Amino acid sequence: MKSSKLYVVAFLCVTSLFSQKSDEQQIKSIYDLALTQGKSYDWLNHLSNQIGGRLSGSVQAEQAVDYTKSQLDSLGFDKVWLQPVMVPKWVRGIPEFAYIESKPGITTNVPICALGGSVATPPGGIKANVVEVQSIEELESLGEAKLKGKIVFFNRPMQADLISTFAAYSGCVDQRGQGAAEAGKYGAVGVIVRSMNLRLDDYPHTGAMGYGDTPSENRIPAAAISTNGAELLSTTLKLNPNIQFYFKQNCKQLDDVKSYNVIAEIKGSTFPNEIMVVGGHLDSWDLGDGAHDDGAGCVQSMEALRLLKETGYTPKRTIRVVLFMNEENGLRGGKEYAAVAKNKNESHVFALESDAGGFTPRGFSFNASEDNINMAKNWATLFEPYLIHVFVEGYGGADINPLKNNNDDIVLAGLRPDSQRYFDHHHAENDTFEHINKRELELGGATMASLIYLFDKYGTIKK
Amino acid sequence: MKSSKLYVVAFLCVTSLFSQKSDEQQIKSIYDLALTQGKSYDWLNHLSNQIGGRLSGSVQAEQAVDYTKSQLDSLGFDKVWLQPVMVPKWVRGIPEFAYIESKPGITTNVPICALGGSVATPPGGIKANVVEVQSIEELESLGEAKLKGKIVFFNRPMQADLISTFAAYSGCVDQRGQGAAEAGKYGAVGVIVRSMNLRLDDYPHTGAMGYGDTPSENRIPAAAISTNGAELLSTTLKLNPNIQFYFKQNCKQLDDVKSYNVIAEIKGSTFPNEIMVVGGHLDSWDLGDGAHDDGAGCVQSMEALRLLKETGYTPKRTIRVVLFMNEENGLRGGKEYAAVAKNKNESHVFALESDAGGFTPRGFSFNASEDNINMAKNWATLFEPYLIHVFVEGYGGADINPLKNNNDDIVLAGLRPDSQRYFDHHHAENDTFEHINKRELELGGATMASLIYLFDKYGTIKK
Repeated sequence: MKSSKLYVVAFLCVTSLFSQKSDEQQIKSIYDLALTQGKSYDWLNHLSNQIGGRLSGSVQAEQAVDYTKSQLDSLGFDKVWLQPVMVPKWVRGIPEFAYIESKPGITTNVPICALGGSVATPPGGIKANVVEVQSIEELESLGEAKLKGKIVFFNRPMQADLISTFAAYSGCVDQRGQGAAEAGKYGAVGVIVRSMNLRLDDYPHTGAMGYGDTPSENRIPAAAISTNGAELLSTTLKLNPNIQFYFKQNCKQLDDVKSYNVIAEIKGSTFPNEIMVVGGHLDSWDLGDGAHDDGAGCVQSMEALRLLKETGYTPKRTIRVVLFMNEENGLRGGKEYAAVAKNKNESHVFALESDAGGFTPRGFSFNASEDNINMAKNWATLFEPYLIHVFVEGYGGADINPLKNNNDDIVLAGLRPDSQRYFDHHHAENDTFEHINKRELELGGATMASLIYLFDKYGTIKK
Repeated sequence: MKSSKLYVVAFLCVTSLFSQKSDEQQIKSIYDLALTQGKSYDWLNHLSNQIGGRLSGSVQAEQAVDYTKSQLDSLGFDKVWLQPVMVPKWVRGIPEFAYIESKPGITTNVPICALGGSVATPPGGIKANVVEVQSIEELESLGEAKLKGKIVFFNRPMQADLISTFAAYSGCVDQRGQGAAEAGKYGAVGVIVRSMNLRLDDYPHTGAMGYGDTPSENRIPAAAISTNGAELLSTTLKLNPNIQFYFKQNCKQLDDVKSYNVIAEIKGSTFPNEIMVVGGHLDSWDLGDGAHDDGAGCVQSMEALRLLKETGYTPKRTIRVVLFMNEENGLRGGKEYAAVAKNKNESHVFALESDAGGFTPRGFSFNASEDNINMAKNWATLFEPYLIHVFVEGYGGADINPLKNNNDDIVLAGLRPDSQRYFDHHHAENDTFEHINKRELELGGATMASLIYLFDKYGTIKK
């Protein structure tokens, strides 16, 4: 145990002068290629503008499978294949509709969208009084007396003074995920959730919700309202708590359908049975074209493998790009990939996911042992010229997380791009290709390729 | 000399535990206030959308002077005033027009704009053969034989593999600045310059150019062409070197007019005669609304002073916000401010400029002594929670640079935001408010206020 660590440290020291130089050169060649002959932007243009939103089970999701497989086929990797996986198929139906009725007959339309996984309203919609709450905990104190027959309006905003917008998101998303299941217990008839968005604008943001073990007959519909809509509703309620809210949606959960993870690999030259994964998720929500979430992560992952190959690097370990299906509303792709890997007794030593938008990369968060994190921190100077400076303990990514069950020793890493703009677009109609900057996207792919290069070359530290 | 340095170091060590905590708190309160009750975004909305492009000498520039003065008046600082300065007045006239004539009568329009300071074409425009060059140096080898009567097309692109887009800009901007003066020496009749833009798109980017000591009768007109236009022109020339290019512009240099630097200050409580400046430039080019260049820097500077005041900090030194007039085509405001300061024997010890766009701040570049730069580097941990990590030697800013002549000891600093998107918008029609992200802008103002706080509290290190 300790001796292997010492060996690694000694090896790093002895070879550091030569390696440092050669690492610098390899990493520079990766960034140069990405910025001058990058492919990721064109791929993302196709995924976004020729295909569009890729909700699991949709025609677009299948087109994305075909397109990315054909592109990977053309890159000369050792193997490209599709891994079948059954995915849920939820459909939004006709556009949702909602209004605030401040007096009988006096209505103001507000932008809403059904949350992913929600049931429909009755065909004629729901109209009811509204109870605004700031948290799920508040429901208990209000109780059935105050909530029965009402629409519960969850309006806790994202916290603007958190520098990480992901932290602000984590602090709010329970309202979206469990709000309907919890409000339903008190007899509420519907749930409206303030969009997870730090801006005030008119875009409702969808996202997954679940009913837990609520029996089907007790499931109430849930929708997101735009932040401007939430502000209006809240103000209107302050003026008159007796206003009514109307909404209508006819979304539906259909039977599961077959889909695929898209996989390509370069076989390792020295340790072919040690597998390193780089990936993003190919599915997206349906409102925008999923350019940031997570078209960007997919094309960056494809690009990372291409950059390693085109710069002439021969990986010691097997490196796989995996485009996971169904991260957004089921995680079936990530779970299936891990299950198949376990079944085949594959040894995964490293996995890197990009699922935080195609913005300027700032670094990585690691779900890994302290030794591995420290090793990565020691590479910080190699990344300095590219302004990559974040090397922290944290989350790897939803799709790669199930691999942890197969191998507790695995290094999971997540690319951490600048997060300030992410939730302006996340799960909304404006998550579109025009909000992608080519260079920012390319820098992300190069940063990923560089980390993979280093972990492949030096290996992960086993316990 | 040395003893004062030692004193500072000792002081920092002794008080570090307490100070570190109190510095952390002060800086946190600055960021919190900026992100939750920031004013900069609303100010910039007004500057951009109610006023618009603010070319020196224009009505809009004067409106911007009035507006920012009135806002500063409302913030309760100790003093607000206008500092008169004569500025050049160049006007674009009617929209420019250009086409490539691949065969007689077969024309393709291309987007161009006059460079700032250029002379007009003759009223009927100019039509001539085109010689494409990559550099000013190339002109000499071509000589009058190849250039006389021709339009010179400078087409060296920005270097995509440089991580700092400002470095890529510096590597190209000589074509824009001196291209016409140099090509004119060989009898060229006009100059077309590839826009300083890393993207391929249809926006021509203007910017300052000069004729040096070229007599007026020998000055030839110069325009920028969009990057897509440049690619088209270059390809067309490769197919047929005898194509003609037509362009027409009726821009004009008028007499200088009176304008103003807008200044506000909080008087120092301990060293009122030591002055610290924070600023940006109020003028902009006329094509867009100057949101990034440099409306952002102006509102961030105003906000920095407001944040210090509203968080209850009492500055030891006098802190001034200066909104400089005429950075883009004359630097008259910056020069005048320094001249008046010299005349009044004012002692400026520190100046910070924001003129690199309203993007996520990454850190600072310092034009200062090594001791001062090292002191700033020692504050890096205070900035770490805000992902501020760049503390490098470099440029302060154009407007504050003349202060260096008054006091060689002065610390000049430039805010360094993420630079990837800047030149997509710089000096072009799409430098508009919609491309500003509120949080990124606010983080910049908070970052500036925090640096000012630290330099005020600990003082700069004198030689």
